[in-house]
Amino acid sequence: MSTIEIKDKLLSKNDQNALANRNLFDRHGVWCVNLISAPGSGKTSLIESTADHLSGRLNLGVLVGDLETENDANRIAAHGVPVRQIITGGACHLNARTVGDFLVHFDLERLDALIIENVGNLVCPASYYLGEHDRVSLISTPEGDDKPLKYPAMFRNASVLLINKIDLVPYVNCSVDTMVRNAMTVNPKLKIFKMSCTTNEGIPEWCGWLEEQLKK
Amino acid sequence: MSTIEIKDKLLSKNDQNALANRNLFDRHGVWCVNLISAPGSGKTSLIESTADHLSGRLNLGVLVGDLETENDANRIAAHGVPVRQIITGGACHLNARTVGDFLVHFDLERLDALIIENVGNLVCPASYYLGEHDRVSLISTPEGDDKPLKYPAMFRNASVLLINKIDLVPYVNCSVDTMVRNAMTVNPKLKIFKMSCTTNEGIPEWCGWLEEQLKK
Repeated sequence: MSTIEIKDKLLSKNDQNALANRNLFDRHGVWCVNLISAPGSGKTSLIESTADHLSGRLNLGVLVGDLETENDANRIAAHGVPVRQIITGGACHLNARTVGDFLVHFDLERLDALIIENVGNLVCPASYYLGEHDRVSLISTPEGDDKPLKYPAMFRNASVLLINKIDLVPYVNCSVDTMVRNAMTVNPKLKIFKMSCTTNEGIPEWCGWLEEQLKK
Repeated sequence: MSTIEIKDKLLSKNDQNALANRNLFDRHGVWCVNLISAPGSGKTSLIESTADHLSGRLNLGVLVGDLETENDANRIAAHGVPVRQIITGGACHLNARTVGDFLVHFDLERLDALIIENVGNLVCPASYYLGEHDRVSLISTPEGDDKPLKYPAMFRNASVLLINKIDLVPYVNCSVDTMVRNAMTVNPKLKIFKMSCTTNEGIPEWCGWLEEQLKK
């Protein structure tokens, strides 16, 4: 019983910090996306393609979470967007407090949108609201079409599902139709985009959706 | 300070349970492997190929951990090995206590080896010893060659690294040589097998290694 109470307290503290982040975003007119996926699904590649496509159209910022290394931040910085890296030092997810601490490194008044690249993990990040306007789950075809049923929390609380690496479908054991059906079983409200960061298929549609959100 | 103390207590309780599991394995002559990977790297496919290859050569049992669904257990059971599924109901890793609770469902005296398929997660399972003789990390080429540097804990404490889906190398942005070099940087003692559950390449070598362990 005491364990449950402590957990509730921790979660609500995180939610308090998340709401503070959200207020900050809204005050500065920044649309925030929390991008979540397993390791290697293509989060960094997606952000690189997104930065290229939106260059000159809107001002994007990126906050990257990783257990170790600044590799992802270096890759993204090469595309001309402001980027900061959080090294979690072993923690399996980002929390709202840490995100809040790093927001001071951005000139929010100059940003239109901020993408937070969460730690590569299809389990733990689902439990931590960071203050985002939209949670975007990314999954790649080599991971298999059963994943939405096996990791439902990651899809239940997302507004968008990006199905990446569709160029690999001929070579892997994955039906995109089944993946879509499984995802919709978990969350019928999901907006779904099929894409490939290699061929650029689906990138304009995803970026178009992001631009639409900024008008809200 | 109190947080650190509580964490230490929890970890050592898990280790106590893990040692109890290990004693049970040793008493019955069962070699236990803790198989860890990201979601969709191919843990279940690997176990299916392993069960087929070792059929008639040794008696294998499988304990599967998943957040939801019994899909994996059903796939593995079709290969004629005893299998039990732990539904973690959201927990991001297996712990030694839960594994111990499920061992009563196996006739350990008839088993030579037990593979524990952990929850698909490249972060949290690294912190929980289950009583295994060997920790085996599995990574697939579509995940990218940088993953050992970004998720080092999962490679640091493993004795074996299986690089899966090498048949996809022509289609993905991954150098197997770089992946091997990055893994060896984290853990120079790793025994590495390159494999594909689709073409069966590397499966005999991996199974040969497993059979060697049983003679120890």
